[in-house]
Amino acid sequence: MMKKTRPIGIFDSGVGGLTVVKEVMQALPGEDIVYFGDTARVPYGPKSQDTIIRFSIENILFLLRQNVKLIIIACNTSSSVALSIVERNFKVPIIGVINPGAAEAVRLTKKKRVGVIGTRTTIKSRAYEKQIQLLAPQVRVFSEACPLFVPLAEEGWLEKDVTRQIADEYLKPLKTKHIDTIVLGCTHYPLLKPVIRKVMGDEVKLVDSARQVAKKAKIILEQNGLLAAKGAKSKSRICFYVSDEPENFAKQGQKFLGFKLGNVRKVANV
Amino acid sequence: MMKKTRPIGIFDSGVGGLTVVKEVMQALPGEDIVYFGDTARVPYGPKSQDTIIRFSIENILFLLRQNVKLIIIACNTSSSVALSIVERNFKVPIIGVINPGAAEAVRLTKKKRVGVIGTRTTIKSRAYEKQIQLLAPQVRVFSEACPLFVPLAEEGWLEKDVTRQIADEYLKPLKTKHIDTIVLGCTHYPLLKPVIRKVMGDEVKLVDSARQVAKKAKIILEQNGLLAAKGAKSKSRICFYVSDEPENFAKQGQKFLGFKLGNVRKVANV
Repeated sequence: MMKKTRPIGIFDSGVGGLTVVKEVMQALPGEDIVYFGDTARVPYGPKSQDTIIRFSIENILFLLRQNVKLIIIACNTSSSVALSIVERNFKVPIIGVINPGAAEAVRLTKKKRVGVIGTRTTIKSRAYEKQIQLLAPQVRVFSEACPLFVPLAEEGWLEKDVTRQIADEYLKPLKTKHIDTIVLGCTHYPLLKPVIRKVMGDEVKLVDSARQVAKKAKIILEQNGLLAAKGAKSKSRICFYVSDEPENFAKQGQKFLGFKLGNVRKVANV
Repeated sequence: MMKKTRPIGIFDSGVGGLTVVKEVMQALPGEDIVYFGDTARVPYGPKSQDTIIRFSIENILFLLRQNVKLIIIACNTSSSVALSIVERNFKVPIIGVINPGAAEAVRLTKKKRVGVIGTRTTIKSRAYEKQIQLLAPQVRVFSEACPLFVPLAEEGWLEKDVTRQIADEYLKPLKTKHIDTIVLGCTHYPLLKPVIRKVMGDEVKLVDSARQVAKKAKIILEQNGLLAAKGAKSKSRICFYVSDEPENFAKQGQKFLGFKLGNVRKVANV
């Protein structure tokens, strides 16, 4: 297989990383994609760094067996604790969602005050905070873990009153910090945009890392001469792999992508 | 090692099964216990039958390597979908929490109307319903999945107003069914007893399977001549194993058991 025509690999702990697939399809039409969702071991958010690193390496090894030319870690938790280790050890270019999201937040904030929300492990890692302050030391970062946001999104309770109350409770400390930008540091959180916007107010900008990481993927492929030949194909081919049964993933995935997922296979790699 | 002095094995998807450990220590003082909490892959509730069966078999193989004489599946989801398969294939006696809980519900209900709450997979399996109707065909069973109860319990939001509102929403259908008994079909749910009681009313009896399964374990050990010699020891020795890091488990576990967990080790068996 020609090097350039090899697929882009994307993994996430579950279905949330499909927000990244969507953006990659937009930014890089004609590229093939292999997606792996670790649905048997989801969620990663409450688990330890060591375990998330182990899972991430297993996922990368699986994607490498699919002959990918670039790997995107769509999972924020995995990006925040595993990226620095895996990018040092694997030859394949690997990018995560933290740095592109951090860069976008720095670009957007006028008041130099940014909020970050994510899982407990993402927030504890301080990955967004460190990256934002590396890019712009004058920007102040305020972080809050929102552990119930993932189960609420998975339950489909996106606009219920209790969801707003829970968002109120989690985001209360951020509301007093006069931030003008907030990073949605978890692939599930874009589903909760309406309620987050309601609680934080319309003037606060929401940064969704998915779009930013897709742009970065394009740059990396260009730099490495790995972009699929233009006009070679009109449509991307996407293969979906999961570690739990495919049916539920296919059903949930349709909500994220807006089209029917044709090809979802269960793999026993993990 | 003498057969009778071998430990009892107990596994759960995480920390919730410690409610069973507590009851086994009460019902069977002097018995040693090996506990395995699959904290790297928790929760089991939203995952498929095939995956839960695979995880359960791996957990059983681990406990067998610890030379256990009896295995208790403390996890309701695993009991409801894997027990019938594993009890058929392994020589070691294996018991789950469904049948003891179902028997207790049948014993307690006067109106012959029982409610069952649990994870999505437990409810979908209809395991409690089938077992209750096997024991007492005249008893009517009404079931509701409560997927947010586990994350709420893990977040420690046991008596918050939003927790009551979520319980209201989930339990609303059961309130119209004139039940007098409700099975807490998940090891986390006993933590939510106060809010469940508030929503359902004091006259509805709550069945917590942990106590019942401990009684059944005692009967099985007696029947098989496997009870540890009386007076041999004044205190049980308990070893805790987990698949994710031990610290968080030890901290959470203390809440369940009411004492400090001395000996929690991480194993890479899964």
